[in-house]
Amino acid sequence: MGRPRTPLLDRRRIGAAALRLADEKGALSIPALAKALGVAPSALYHHVAGRDDIISLMREELALVTGDDQDWSQPWEQSLEGWARSYLAAFAAHPGAVPLLATAPLAEPFMHAMYEKVAVLLLDAGFATKEVMPLITALESFVLGSALDLVAPPVMVSDVARDTTPHLSAVLDQTPADRSRATLAFDLGLRALLTGFRDLLRP
Amino acid sequence: MGRPRTPLLDRRRIGAAALRLADEKGALSIPALAKALGVAPSALYHHVAGRDDIISLMREELALVTGDDQDWSQPWEQSLEGWARSYLAAFAAHPGAVPLLATAPLAEPFMHAMYEKVAVLLLDAGFATKEVMPLITALESFVLGSALDLVAPPVMVSDVARDTTPHLSAVLDQTPADRSRATLAFDLGLRALLTGFRDLLRP
Repeated sequence: MGRPRTPLLDRRRIGAAALRLADEKGALSIPALAKALGVAPSALYHHVAGRDDIISLMREELALVTGDDQDWSQPWEQSLEGWARSYLAAFAAHPGAVPLLATAPLAEPFMHAMYEKVAVLLLDAGFATKEVMPLITALESFVLGSALDLVAPPVMVSDVARDTTPHLSAVLDQTPADRSRATLAFDLGLRALLTGFRDLLRP
Repeated sequence: MGRPRTPLLDRRRIGAAALRLADEKGALSIPALAKALGVAPSALYHHVAGRDDIISLMREELALVTGDDQDWSQPWEQSLEGWARSYLAAFAAHPGAVPLLATAPLAEPFMHAMYEKVAVLLLDAGFATKEVMPLITALESFVLGSALDLVAPPVMVSDVARDTTPHLSAVLDQTPADRSRATLAFDLGLRALLTGFRDLLRP
């Protein structure tokens, strides 16, 4: 038979499989990941140091999806909006992995390099140093929640009784019943957040 | 032995167990829920119609946690802020259930009654009918993302190298290393969102 030309396992493949598994199951365990890859758990440990290392590989895989094509030279509001939109696209592709990735410490140098760019952007825009991380976190929270909404059904509020909830009915009559429901909400929320951020810069 | 005074299963107990299971496992299956309750799946079906019904019971259980003590007679910004904060508290207690609950259609009359109150609030404040659902959805997305951040580690961005990412380091020097990191971000983001919403009312 000979040995296969390409190794059965490599770190990229492990990261992609972990992302798929977390997305499907909402959780990640080494035995389940090994099973999904068709190898023994011990084989996995030849390539990764442990759970935190696997989460790093998942983040690398996400970054590969979004690409590093963000233009940071635009005015801060456009740059921040572009960042938020690419972030949304990446997480909306793997909604089940959102809780895991949102709660695992960020120790990866490539993630730090991204945050360094956002920090420079916001400091240059005139935000106070102590405001920068809360601003980034608030934007991320909005993006992660929106990623979940983007994969929710087009009609989220259903079977509404017009007689007992007439105002809600009227509102839903003017709410799209397709995917634009979620994108409209994201666009409006992002605009509102940026308006609110800008307001912090006023003397 | 005789029959137990209280039934082994009731809908309230099923909802609470489902919420715990979804929180721990990030997912919900009938066999796993039956196992957690120590009964056969067939016994579950004596009390619930199916998966959607169980999700309704989880939402009822969450509403019991937050209570229905919201004062809707305040100015719209205070009412909306109060709603967002009670929502945050409920979901931060069950972060693993966030993806499931955020993506299951809302067909429950008690949920519609709550949205009716928010719809009346925003229409009375002067928002356009077609803006109301996007506003509610954007606020919910922010709250759900923030609930995940609230259960994330106090120090989320760790092991930062000062020489390669100096601005991020300076920012983190002024970021709290305890639970207030997340509450500061939520407070700032909520204020920004409300400022942005208010801006939509300007002629």
